[in-house]
Amino acid sequence: MTIEKPSANALWGGRFEQGPAALMSRINASIDFDKRFYRQDIAGSRAHCSMLVAKGIIPAADGAAILKGLDQVEREIDEGKMVFDPALEDIHMHVESRLKEIIGEPAGRLHTARSRNDQVATDFRLWVRDAMDRLDGLLADLQKALVTRAAEHVETLMPGFTHLQAAQPVTFGHHMLAYVEMVARDRSRLRDARKRMNENPLGAAALAGTSFPLDRHMTSKALGFDGPMRNSLDAVSARDFAQEYLAMASICATHLSRLAEELVIWSSAQFGFVRMSDAFSSGSSIMPQKRNPDAAELVRAKAGRVIGAFNALTIALKGLALTYGKDMQEDKEPVFDAADTIELCVAASAGMILDMTVNAGAMRRATEVGFLTATDLADWLVREKGLPFRDAHHVTGRAVKLAEGQGIGLEALTLADLQAVHPGITGDVFAVLGVENSVRSRTSFGGTAPARVAEAVAAWQRELGL
Amino acid sequence: MTIEKPSANALWGGRFEQGPAALMSRINASIDFDKRFYRQDIAGSRAHCSMLVAKGIIPAADGAAILKGLDQVEREIDEGKMVFDPALEDIHMHVESRLKEIIGEPAGRLHTARSRNDQVATDFRLWVRDAMDRLDGLLADLQKALVTRAAEHVETLMPGFTHLQAAQPVTFGHHMLAYVEMVARDRSRLRDARKRMNENPLGAAALAGTSFPLDRHMTSKALGFDGPMRNSLDAVSARDFAQEYLAMASICATHLSRLAEELVIWSSAQFGFVRMSDAFSSGSSIMPQKRNPDAAELVRAKAGRVIGAFNALTIALKGLALTYGKDMQEDKEPVFDAADTIELCVAASAGMILDMTVNAGAMRRATEVGFLTATDLADWLVREKGLPFRDAHHVTGRAVKLAEGQGIGLEALTLADLQAVHPGITGDVFAVLGVENSVRSRTSFGGTAPARVAEAVAAWQRELGL
Amino acid sequence: MTIEKPSANALWGGRFEQGPAALMSRINASIDFDKRFYRQDIAGSRAHCSMLVAKGIIPAADGAAILKGLDQVEREIDEGKMVFDPALEDIHMHVESRLKEIIGEPAGRLHTARSRNDQVATDFRLWVRDAMDRLDGLLADLQKALVTRAAEHVETLMPGFTHLQAAQPVTFGHHMLAYVEMVARDRSRLRDARKRMNENPLGAAALAGTSFPLDRHMTSKALGFDGPMRNSLDAVSARDFAQEYLAMASICATHLSRLAEELVIWSSAQFGFVRMSDAFSSGSSIMPQKRNPDAAELVRAKAGRVIGAFNALTIALKGLALTYGKDMQEDKEPVFDAADTIELCVAASAGMILDMTVNAGAMRRATEVGFLTATDLADWLVREKGLPFRDAHHVTGRAVKLAEGQGIGLEALTLADLQAVHPGITGDVFAVLGVENSVRSRTSFGGTAPARVAEAVAAWQRELGL
Amino acid sequence: MTIEKPSANALWGGRFEQGPAALMSRINASIDFDKRFYRQDIAGSRAHCSMLVAKGIIPAADGAAILKGLDQVEREIDEGKMVFDPALEDIHMHVESRLKEIIGEPAGRLHTARSRNDQVATDFRLWVRDAMDRLDGLLADLQKALVTRAAEHVETLMPGFTHLQAAQPVTFGHHMLAYVEMVARDRSRLRDARKRMNENPLGAAALAGTSFPLDRHMTSKALGFDGPMRNSLDAVSARDFAQEYLAMASICATHLSRLAEELVIWSSAQFGFVRMSDAFSSGSSIMPQKRNPDAAELVRAKAGRVIGAFNALTIALKGLALTYGKDMQEDKEPVFDAADTIELCVAASAGMILDMTVNAGAMRRATEVGFLTATDLADWLVREKGLPFRDAHHVTGRAVKLAEGQGIGLEALTLADLQAVHPGITGDVFAVLGVENSVRSRTSFGGTAPARVAEAVAAWQRELGL
Repeated sequence: MTIEKPSANALWGGRFEQGPAALMSRINASIDFDKRFYRQDIAGSRAHCSMLVAKGIIPAADGAAILKGLDQVEREIDEGKMVFDPALEDIHMHVESRLKEIIGEPAGRLHTARSRNDQVATDFRLWVRDAMDRLDGLLADLQKALVTRAAEHVETLMPGFTHLQAAQPVTFGHHMLAYVEMVARDRSRLRDARKRMNENPLGAAALAGTSFPLDRHMTSKALGFDGPMRNSLDAVSARDFAQEYLAMASICATHLSRLAEELVIWSSAQFGFVRMSDAFSSGSSIMPQKRNPDAAELVRAKAGRVIGAFNALTIALKGLALTYGKDMQEDKEPVFDAADTIELCVAASAGMILDMTVNAGAMRRATEVGFLTATDLADWLVREKGLPFRDAHHVTGRAVKLAEGQGIGLEALTLADLQAVHPGITGDVFAVLGVENSVRSRTSFGGTAPARVAEAVAAWQRELGL
Repeated sequence: MTIEKPSANALWGGRFEQGPAALMSRINASIDFDKRFYRQDIAGSRAHCSMLVAKGIIPAADGAAILKGLDQVEREIDEGKMVFDPALEDIHMHVESRLKEIIGEPAGRLHTARSRNDQVATDFRLWVRDAMDRLDGLLADLQKALVTRAAEHVETLMPGFTHLQAAQPVTFGHHMLAYVEMVARDRSRLRDARKRMNENPLGAAALAGTSFPLDRHMTSKALGFDGPMRNSLDAVSARDFAQEYLAMASICATHLSRLAEELVIWSSAQFGFVRMSDAFSSGSSIMPQKRNPDAAELVRAKAGRVIGAFNALTIALKGLALTYGKDMQEDKEPVFDAADTIELCVAASAGMILDMTVNAGAMRRATEVGFLTATDLADWLVREKGLPFRDAHHVTGRAVKLAEGQGIGLEALTLADLQAVHPGITGDVFAVLGVENSVRSRTSFGGTAPARVAEAVAAWQRELGL
Repeated sequence: MTIEKPSANALWGGRFEQGPAALMSRINASIDFDKRFYRQDIAGSRAHCSMLVAKGIIPAADGAAILKGLDQVEREIDEGKMVFDPALEDIHMHVESRLKEIIGEPAGRLHTARSRNDQVATDFRLWVRDAMDRLDGLLADLQKALVTRAAEHVETLMPGFTHLQAAQPVTFGHHMLAYVEMVARDRSRLRDARKRMNENPLGAAALAGTSFPLDRHMTSKALGFDGPMRNSLDAVSARDFAQEYLAMASICATHLSRLAEELVIWSSAQFGFVRMSDAFSSGSSIMPQKRNPDAAELVRAKAGRVIGAFNALTIALKGLALTYGKDMQEDKEPVFDAADTIELCVAASAGMILDMTVNAGAMRRATEVGFLTATDLADWLVREKGLPFRDAHHVTGRAVKLAEGQGIGLEALTLADLQAVHPGITGDVFAVLGVENSVRSRTSFGGTAPARVAEAVAAWQRELGL
Repeated sequence: MTIEKPSANALWGGRFEQGPAALMSRINASIDFDKRFYRQDIAGSRAHCSMLVAKGIIPAADGAAILKGLDQVEREIDEGKMVFDPALEDIHMHVESRLKEIIGEPAGRLHTARSRNDQVATDFRLWVRDAMDRLDGLLADLQKALVTRAAEHVETLMPGFTHLQAAQPVTFGHHMLAYVEMVARDRSRLRDARKRMNENPLGAAALAGTSFPLDRHMTSKALGFDGPMRNSLDAVSARDFAQEYLAMASICATHLSRLAEELVIWSSAQFGFVRMSDAFSSGSSIMPQKRNPDAAELVRAKAGRVIGAFNALTIALKGLALTYGKDMQEDKEPVFDAADTIELCVAASAGMILDMTVNAGAMRRATEVGFLTATDLADWLVREKGLPFRDAHHVTGRAVKLAEGQGIGLEALTLADLQAVHPGITGDVFAVLGVENSVRSRTSFGGTAPARVAEAVAAWQRELGL
């Protein structure tokens, strides 16, 4: 006799007083989170039902009853009347069970030629698709906020930094537009991902397809999918669409964290480039100048959470044999949490940008230290005087030293001083030495010259319908 | 004039119809999750209050009123009577505000010589310490479950696998004990982490300490800490204790995922080594032999979630300037989620182990293919006949080939057959050729010989109080 | 006097005997890894030089000398003649320095209107673009391998699994094609990512653009970019293209890990569905049946490495202020390592698939246990007899029980037996009860019916030029 | 006939021109990285050999030959004379094979009662243990560097920040000591991890133990292990010691990244608190004030790499069935890379701290804006005048407003001004209003009062032997 009875149950009853069933209910039931699906679940059922009727697989009368019943179930959940019960594990069972109560027997026909496996894959795809659309809209708003501020600051001078050291003057508008570009790529990634994932798993049934004469193109159309997935095993096993959403969100969150870091640093008393509005900061009743950029810090930190969600799902999927495994139930919570997080971070970023006060004076003053036009002088010597690059740098170094010795900027040197450094220097040079001149001269495509920035702002305004 | 007015607010009102305040409330308020702290928060306040009284910093009467009020607040929260309101951002404000309503003026003295910064650090440490203790208890239960099954299967033979290929026979009890060892290290890690983190941040105040004559040793003692933290900046900035908890949980979750993978594979029809109980599996009404090991799959998958939480927090802390930043508010949710997850996974693992049916026959049969005692023969030739390792392997290879040709196991070869392969082989050899003999012979310390396994079981039973 | 002299240098000389310079060289020099860039670096320099000449920024003769010199430098590196020296920190300095040795003075003109910042961004983009192209080619080969094996096994029966429990019969060809679909999406992701990143940072100079009259469209064309990046700050700060490559590789690695897990499980003696070739497995000289699927295990494990690389880069970029920071030097090694890893994993996967022996008999036998056609019977009752779904399941359950009691499959029941379970059952039912029949009936779009699988194979063969 | 011949080999020869063997060699061979083990491997072999002799398992003469041969092999590798060959896959085979060449036949006896599985587990543990010891030494040096600078700056005033907003004055010495505390915990973690992992897998053989009469305690002692591992299956399967090392390194790297972020921010012109030495920064030949804190940025970024390594290994181990799987070969490279990285980052951090110039004047000036002693005034009103906390805050707010209106600090208000705000204020108040006084008053345990900081410095100096 090889099968033995478990003898260990004596341990049950101690710490595990609720016993196996309660434990299993806690680890297994998904209704706490998959109820967020209900609209998608009902939409999928509507499409499936209509197709079953159209193909003569279920009677038209039953179909009509089901559709009417689904409307009522949806309304009830909309209105908060559905009582969620862990015993009915998931949203699918809640909808089915309530439908049965409402319309009786015909409810049983809805699940014809369908399985929980293709149903949940469909619901989740629909939900993620909606999340992609929401995020795209929010990112467009963030771009609008950035472009709006850029438009105000096409000519506002600030230091461009490398290594958090001022390097060359740029305009604040140009800086804002750098983020518009990043967000544009984030949106482009979403667009591509959406297109790729917009295929219909419904009709794959448990895993092998079905012998019922389904029309998967019909349900695809009804649900806004571009067409049915081509392999039934893949249809119920694939979660790369969710991984891709989380990867895109992680990259986007990285961008937001960079902006947030800048807002935090710019808000410090030492920089003083921007002042976060009351709405997005917290203060101290007794320290009026202390203005903590809480929202920016949270946006910065929450990148971790989104990246953590990508890891959570990817690790769950790693090494998972086909087709459906219960491991895949771990796909939803990371996606839900990351979607909530990234949407909130994008909105808060847009809000902070719109609301912040820009201290153009502080920015301007910061361009005046550090000889930010040194490269302009060197470039002028190369361009106008034909000096080799290296010689031009030598000459510039000497000029900077001279200015440093006098405690002034390069633009405040006299022509005589400059000619002492290099006799070929002419009065024209002053056209590049001031920071305004420097910025104005950077007219290469994509450069920071206000004329270029204004063009870029205009292009984005057109693009965004501003 | 360098400070300008924000002009961009026109965008407010579209998608962001709720405006900045609502957005900020959503991203900033922590009451949704930090209410899990309330016991720790109130415990910290009690200790602080008693110390303030003892040191004469606040009047005894006020202290008494505060303590009484805190009791009531705690009771109200226990009983679900506290109404949580995002406007009161966090649990600290909820407790304070309710205390003020109950006892009036004296409530204002509780915050003397304390700051939100050291308060939240204290609360969170207390919560994590409790989580460590809970997890340790659950891990002890898992060890008990494993040892209990090991005790039943000290002699039950199964193949020991490398690369999922049967390699040498072992006993199932020995296999169960391998996990007891892993869990023992998981517990040891928790113990070390608990000891390390058991220091009191309270009294660091905002960041610099305080001029009030606090007795931080007194609050430490009251809260069960080993002593106060030694540097006030560190006290409010440190979250490595939470990282360490998540790292420990991640390693533990890795162990559980390995056990879960084995349970899934063993539950397959092809292996058939164990049968998960009804409680921890799901079935099919029409396929009686299909028994999906859902709980094991979830435990396997949830490793991703715990590891994701470690990443979320660590990424949030990366590159964070001292001292407190709002980024650090992102410390709690990953810890809460990981704690819930790992506790559930440990409990479910213990439950599955206790409940599963072991199919000793299937295990035994699986030891009979693949010549699992080939190394025993080779070792015998080395040990008893003094053959060099390499020659012994040669001889063994020939014997295996012979058995394979006859479609039998090594132990079914005749002595004559064996002597044809190597004339020095004697009848003693059969003592190592059967899988029982093989297992019995592995008596080295830590080996799979039933005698050794029985000793190990006994040692663990003593250790665990079984 | 506020600036003090460091007084702590006494500690230098102990453990840090090499002193600060050596330490800095070790942490700072990138030549050990960025030498992999040299072709891209030289290609970028060629394009830049030709444009400088075309725009009259440098003399034609100097341009010609530079181009000739670059050819020689490239040849020397190709031939392993370049001596790499940490003192010349990176590949850019190595190329420049060698160019200077070869052509002298004119070498200094190459860096006109260019900065290390836009140069390295350009080189890295070109390298990642090449990596994307290589990976796409390898993935196409993997698809070919899978389709080739699918073509052989359009009708080979195997169990389709959920939860590693046999659920319904499918064909092995269908299973192979599921991976072809996953890989198709992996390739589609690469294609999108490549298009998105194919923009030229060159000409952004240090960060602000330049006053030289560059033609960035010309260099874009020369380097195969679709056009110049539109914002100079973004051009030198952006690394999302590398993150996206790593994210895509991580998702692809997840797919490969799923296939690898299946190969490991299928190779076990208990499953025996496939036999890995000698080339991709390791064995035991004395255990002929032990065949360790080493390559599959490595592919499975290496998913961790690729995902780790995504994390490494993303964490490095998190919270990084614009524009260039030295942090960004940490972009290359994760990408290089992940590229090497994923390319090797894809190639090894293709190799394993091509080389493995499929044990169709073992697969077929595995379909015969577990009543895999139970759902077919239920569907038949719904479809042909109009039973409601639930009733059909009831009847099926009884039939399975009957077969189980007789120790036979459903298809071996007599019609009388079946009619005893439900009188309406007719002889037609046998057309769905055998596993061949079941599979043949699953003709819905994307289903496992051999006719469908053959169509899918043919479509993929056309698509892949097989 | 169910086993078919692979027919797909036609694809071999295209892109995969090297064929399966070359591919397998590339993915499978570990010699490129595991050669870093050679000392540990040889140490393990010495211990095993001596024990085999002592237990009479191999002849003493063979043992002597082996030990002598191992000395020579080690010397040859030390001297760079070993030619590494991928065909000999790993370091174990290289050592064995060379030993065989040197001493002939007896080499074959070394592997008696040992397997590659326990051998590699032993080697790796020894290597990780050494890495822990190295890291601990480096961390001690970092503490020394921090304490040395703290000792110089016990009284140097700087703003203490929350949210990167100045909050209260502290001393720079106190700030340095905050990191000493963090590093102390990092070292404590290493110590615990080292103790936990210091167990000997040798003697577990392939997985089941062995029938040879080993003395595992003897080899344990010889190798510095506290004792043998207690379960042979666990001994060859466990890699949690490597995970723990990586987790510890990740937490340590997080600490270093926080310090590095501060160094980067403090080095900015806007803060100007410190100046990195030439050795640890890079500059611009033409912008003398630009001093890029490259080393700090790299330390900050490399946290990503270490955390990525933890993920890589943990993901590889996730869901891995016992015992040894080739997946586990992916344990070494993440550990090697992380060890190199963290060691370098710690050393560079110590170097930066030792070498940096502290600008005490800039720090002091930064304490003078923002009313950093507002909490001191409020606390004084509570402490000395018995005002309730809330009233004290009210009064303070009015005083700050008054000072702000006059454009002066709180300490510059006249007593009459202060009494106008609250009549009870007396001249004593000035003792807490200046930042020096504020700092001096924070005498609570762990507070920033110079007296406290001096005590802490002295304690650390004793602890570290400075």
